Amino acid sequence: MGSIFGRIFRVTTWGESHGKGIGAVVDGCPAGLELTEEDIQKYLDRRKPGQSVYSTPRSESDAVEILSGVFEGQTTGTPIALEIRNKTQRSADYSEIAEIYRPGHADFTFDRKYGIRDYRGGGRSSGRETAARVAAGAVAAKIIGRLGITVKAYTRSIGDICIGGFDKDEIFHNPLYMPDKAAAEKAQAYLDELRSSGNSAGGVVECVIKNVPVGLGDPVFDKLDADLAKAMLSIGAAKGFEIGEGMNAARLTGLDNNDGFVLKDGDTVKSSNHSGGVLGGMSDGSDIVFRVAFKPTPSISSVQHTVDRHGNERDISVKGRHDPIIVPRAVVVVETMAAIVIADKLLENMTVRMDRIEQFYRR
Amino acid sequence: MGSIFGRIFRVTTWGESHGKGIGAVVDGCPAGLELTEEDIQKYLDRRKPGQSVYSTPRSESDAVEILSGVFEGQTTGTPIALEIRNKTQRSADYSEIAEIYRPGHADFTFDRKYGIRDYRGGGRSSGRETAARVAAGAVAAKIIGRLGITVKAYTRSIGDICIGGFDKDEIFHNPLYMPDKAAAEKAQAYLDELRSSGNSAGGVVECVIKNVPVGLGDPVFDKLDADLAKAMLSIGAAKGFEIGEGMNAARLTGLDNNDGFVLKDGDTVKSSNHSGGVLGGMSDGSDIVFRVAFKPTPSISSVQHTVDRHGNERDISVKGRHDPIIVPRAVVVVETMAAIVIADKLLENMTVRMDRIEQFYRR
Amino acid sequence: MGSIFGRIFRVTTWGESHGKGIGAVVDGCPAGLELTEEDIQKYLDRRKPGQSVYSTPRSESDAVEILSGVFEGQTTGTPIALEIRNKTQRSADYSEIAEIYRPGHADFTFDRKYGIRDYRGGGRSSGRETAARVAAGAVAAKIIGRLGITVKAYTRSIGDICIGGFDKDEIFHNPLYMPDKAAAEKAQAYLDELRSSGNSAGGVVECVIKNVPVGLGDPVFDKLDADLAKAMLSIGAAKGFEIGEGMNAARLTGLDNNDGFVLKDGDTVKSSNHSGGVLGGMSDGSDIVFRVAFKPTPSISSVQHTVDRHGNERDISVKGRHDPIIVPRAVVVVETMAAIVIADKLLENMTVRMDRIEQFYRR
Amino acid sequence: MGSIFGRIFRVTTWGESHGKGIGAVVDGCPAGLELTEEDIQKYLDRRKPGQSVYSTPRSESDAVEILSGVFEGQTTGTPIALEIRNKTQRSADYSEIAEIYRPGHADFTFDRKYGIRDYRGGGRSSGRETAARVAAGAVAAKIIGRLGITVKAYTRSIGDICIGGFDKDEIFHNPLYMPDKAAAEKAQAYLDELRSSGNSAGGVVECVIKNVPVGLGDPVFDKLDADLAKAMLSIGAAKGFEIGEGMNAARLTGLDNNDGFVLKDGDTVKSSNHSGGVLGGMSDGSDIVFRVAFKPTPSISSVQHTVDRHGNERDISVKGRHDPIIVPRAVVVVETMAAIVIADKLLENMTVRMDRIEQFYRR
Repeated sequence: MGSIFGRIFRVTTWGESHGKGIGAVVDGCPAGLELTEEDIQKYLDRRKPGQSVYSTPRSESDAVEILSGVFEGQTTGTPIALEIRNKTQRSADYSEIAEIYRPGHADFTFDRKYGIRDYRGGGRSSGRETAARVAAGAVAAKIIGRLGITVKAYTRSIGDICIGGFDKDEIFHNPLYMPDKAAAEKAQAYLDELRSSGNSAGGVVECVIKNVPVGLGDPVFDKLDADLAKAMLSIGAAKGFEIGEGMNAARLTGLDNNDGFVLKDGDTVKSSNHSGGVLGGMSDGSDIVFRVAFKPTPSISSVQHTVDRHGNERDISVKGRHDPIIVPRAVVVVETMAAIVIADKLLENMTVRMDRIEQFYRR
Repeated sequence: MGSIFGRIFRVTTWGESHGKGIGAVVDGCPAGLELTEEDIQKYLDRRKPGQSVYSTPRSESDAVEILSGVFEGQTTGTPIALEIRNKTQRSADYSEIAEIYRPGHADFTFDRKYGIRDYRGGGRSSGRETAARVAAGAVAAKIIGRLGITVKAYTRSIGDICIGGFDKDEIFHNPLYMPDKAAAEKAQAYLDELRSSGNSAGGVVECVIKNVPVGLGDPVFDKLDADLAKAMLSIGAAKGFEIGEGMNAARLTGLDNNDGFVLKDGDTVKSSNHSGGVLGGMSDGSDIVFRVAFKPTPSISSVQHTVDRHGNERDISVKGRHDPIIVPRAVVVVETMAAIVIADKLLENMTVRMDRIEQFYRR
Repeated sequence: MGSIFGRIFRVTTWGESHGKGIGAVVDGCPAGLELTEEDIQKYLDRRKPGQSVYSTPRSESDAVEILSGVFEGQTTGTPIALEIRNKTQRSADYSEIAEIYRPGHADFTFDRKYGIRDYRGGGRSSGRETAARVAAGAVAAKIIGRLGITVKAYTRSIGDICIGGFDKDEIFHNPLYMPDKAAAEKAQAYLDELRSSGNSAGGVVECVIKNVPVGLGDPVFDKLDADLAKAMLSIGAAKGFEIGEGMNAARLTGLDNNDGFVLKDGDTVKSSNHSGGVLGGMSDGSDIVFRVAFKPTPSISSVQHTVDRHGNERDISVKGRHDPIIVPRAVVVVETMAAIVIADKLLENMTVRMDRIEQFYRR
Repeated sequence: MGSIFGRIFRVTTWGESHGKGIGAVVDGCPAGLELTEEDIQKYLDRRKPGQSVYSTPRSESDAVEILSGVFEGQTTGTPIALEIRNKTQRSADYSEIAEIYRPGHADFTFDRKYGIRDYRGGGRSSGRETAARVAAGAVAAKIIGRLGITVKAYTRSIGDICIGGFDKDEIFHNPLYMPDKAAAEKAQAYLDELRSSGNSAGGVVECVIKNVPVGLGDPVFDKLDADLAKAMLSIGAAKGFEIGEGMNAARLTGLDNNDGFVLKDGDTVKSSNHSGGVLGGMSDGSDIVFRVAFKPTPSISSVQHTVDRHGNERDISVKGRHDPIIVPRAVVVVETMAAIVIADKLLENMTVRMDRIEQFYRR
């Protein structure tokens, strides 16, 4: 249960890390969108491991195949099935992970909930699951791109190292996706040190969505920021979400935190953006700005104390080469999950005014 | 749209601040739960304004009436309609709020999205909407209480003033619901100062859920923490959510952040709780601990610059007596929304194992 | 559970026959629709009992109150709470119905499923529950009416007596809502006879929806006719649903049953309507025509053999004055449930084409 | 949109007739169910064309592959992805079907709704789509089978030829899946005649579900029979649904139609089954019996008059070898869709009583 996301633009994902493959089905994608495998592949390539020493060096190809819903280069309005076959079904030795509950992982909770678990490579709880979201989110990104909306995520901080400036072009020039070269270099040194000592680091991803029409999101439960928060916390290892001033809003006064309105070219716009682009759960026309905190990679080679599934205390040192940080690979996941939320809200928002419904049907 | 929350235990709320009333319908509440209006009223009374100088001094009574779903003191499994009639429909002067977009409020976004707005007292975007959630959440709290699960929220910080110690009994002994008398006194002084200068403060609510069975929540989109995040960000004025180490997890190393497992009375338990009680989206048996940041009350009497709905720049000083802080009244909202999420996940979790399904039907 | 209907235009109903009242909350109604209590009351009045000797002669007033979602005569896009308070909470003697399982009623199944039951007047399984649907459906009818769509239901047959001709004006001129005066008279004689012998009759309601745009409904699970079927079978006592040729389609050949297409004023239209207005789950531009079969009223005064809740065989003669036929009062329920389905599909259909989404947002 | 079915046991299907393949994702299947590809293949083989002269003689193999959710022969509680690759992507000449609206098909409605259509072999509206449902339904059938529930569908009538007796063993001994050898032979002669004259026939499928626990289904919108009706009408070419007495209930009197209760081995059971196993929307312990009417195959070689997508009137004779009847291949679709509904209701029903929830968690 719980593998379907969205209300109109609905994404179902499936697949385990070391099973036959992973995939997503997108139901509710509008017809008439130009869509190719390349549109999706370019997003997948951004979360591909092995791109740097900071990510798992195995050679996943993650080649996506569109199996349905696209005809002669255009979506048809029917479900779009996206599939990534696992190329290599490694015959690794999983005996340890099959038996011992790794700290910081879902091994224990999965076993207790379901009584059975595909332990190979983390199974359904592997970070690999996010590839299916990225594939589906690439479709959403294409939709919202057609309306001029852009979503851009990047690494804001790693450990205590936070970006100082913001150089858009730098993001894709360092393996950490940080928009600040100096910070990236500092963070790389920090990560090198942690890796060599069998440790790992956490970090924060920031995401900015531009050109969002005013009014996306609903005023009560399905607030835009509420659904963004759900989307973000649904990414493995995410531990916090904040929009606009976020946690810091708690320390401000009303005078500091309120955004005034002014006229700009005849339109009403906010004069500041403490709100992060959402007022009362609805987009307010400013950039949507939010941050997601990711915990350090739980798989570390340092010895940790734990328990096995037979109720014996054990020590474990998680073998294999693991990313010393999740954040760089999470950047594109944040970006595509945000695109899914925005696409869904765009569709929902078309149905809320009687005058526009009449215009639509009286064409 | 967007006024229904939950998958099995589903809550629909309705109502505007100064309309005829507000209410909630709970669909999916199990039959055979003892439930009285008093069970609900005691939660509503906790968010009642006028309890202190820090909350709006009008005399709302917020008397709830159960209209359906309860028979001879027990729920019947049919929808429970809860209603709170607005006693006084004040003939206040709303001309200003009807015309001018208050900074930090949903006036502008509501107008743009729907083209029409019940501006009286904030309408649907008023904090008063949360009374309906509290009523529904009181039902959820009763359910989970039957299983020994407790949810307790309190004010963790106001502005820069954070609790130092934790005195459970103190929570209900100060109007700010802080579990630390000294901090509460300091915060009161801070709020007095802000109010007198036409300003307001934000703060953080912390919530602790105890005795949650292992395994609530699903491993992908419907993670327990993801749905808690959505629930919390759906509360007006919430700007951030964090679970366990939260945003701070980004600054820790894997060694510091991972929780080991140990045996305790033969059962597997975590030896620390950096995770905040959730691993891989499923409850891990530790206390669930999360925090929600609330922005300062946007209604302040200080003069602010804004625009009216006719496209003229204007100054506004929000009249009326407003809480200088939202947090104390949000405490019970956080608590009851958390109860709704837990109740829903409890029900969902009953259906995930074939052996238990067979036991259930082979009784 | 199971008291919410629809995907975008979502209706939640609540209430028991002899509780404090019944009601509905409509979430997802577009803003800017003119709506008054009178708009709803006129539908409710059509299912009011006591209008003729063929319906229960107690004086329910069923006065609806709009509690939210309407401001200055227009919907605001927020949930519309509709409430009908039960005027008289009769202190009838329910000892028999509380103990004995009435044949043809839900007493037995309700008890077994929930273990508790509000037995007064049938509780949640009473026909009175449909008043809440009618209230919500009146809102839907207003929406679709703005687009020129009309829904008209009437009694097609009672027992073996089927309408011969079709006189639209006659429908409201006989208490059976039959569009054929002669058939209505014959049916009345039949019903008189049955009532006097402690028996009851079934019948068929037919519904015609005109001016539906082509393309409502989805091609797979959420077909227009599939959702109409669900809506109709969800009405108590409904036992069959058929669209177009319906059950009779099974006896036709392809040549007889296929509808050709022709040009009419330059537009493509069907030359016949065996399909009943739906092709491949989507409206095809012809009238939508379907029929619903209702079983005879199960409450009859004739002695029937049954069992009580304590496991004793018993005889029962259902006391009180009951309609000898459900059909006339079901006519407006069929009509309003159909309106709900059409309204929901109208909204869903706005989001399925990229070119129209772009037009919408590039206004 | 509209390609997801179910509330807890949720099935998403995808795929077009002549695309790369079709498939289904089952979310919400409980963990610990033994499941193999063979379990599914045996259901798929029953709808395989080419089994007789009455079904399309092309050699589809329809080999299903389980891509996820099963580990070491057991379901893990994660989504089960089922895939059937299309083996042959025939380079047929679709120019006619691409341009001309076939009577009785979704060509016209699909074009109007989406503006684009994968016309090859009917695309998403092809009967081939049902293979994905059958695959998913086979999983449901396995679940309910574990509880002793059986679902059995068969052909009840073809044209005017209805079964007389009922010989269970005969069902799989004739290509029409009729439980009456004489009727089957008569029907075959009728079909031979129709085929040779370029025509086709309709028919009725009947389905019997045994050993269903009392209480499945909800009393209002999500009635068991309402969801069965939706499931059945969602199958292409279905035009009518009836449960128990069905449409005939309209002609009966209360005395004839009501089912009394009696004691049998100490348990309360119905003494007849006019209701078809459902009372007030909940299963009543008797066999669930329903019928679905299917229209004649719309693809016939006889010349029909229609319009093309450019607005020209045209004649069409649908080429290719088409089944002269849909019914025999629909039998297994009815059966598996019914299994999906029952499985979903079984899971839902576990959450409705507080005492059982307490038992469940206090194990």
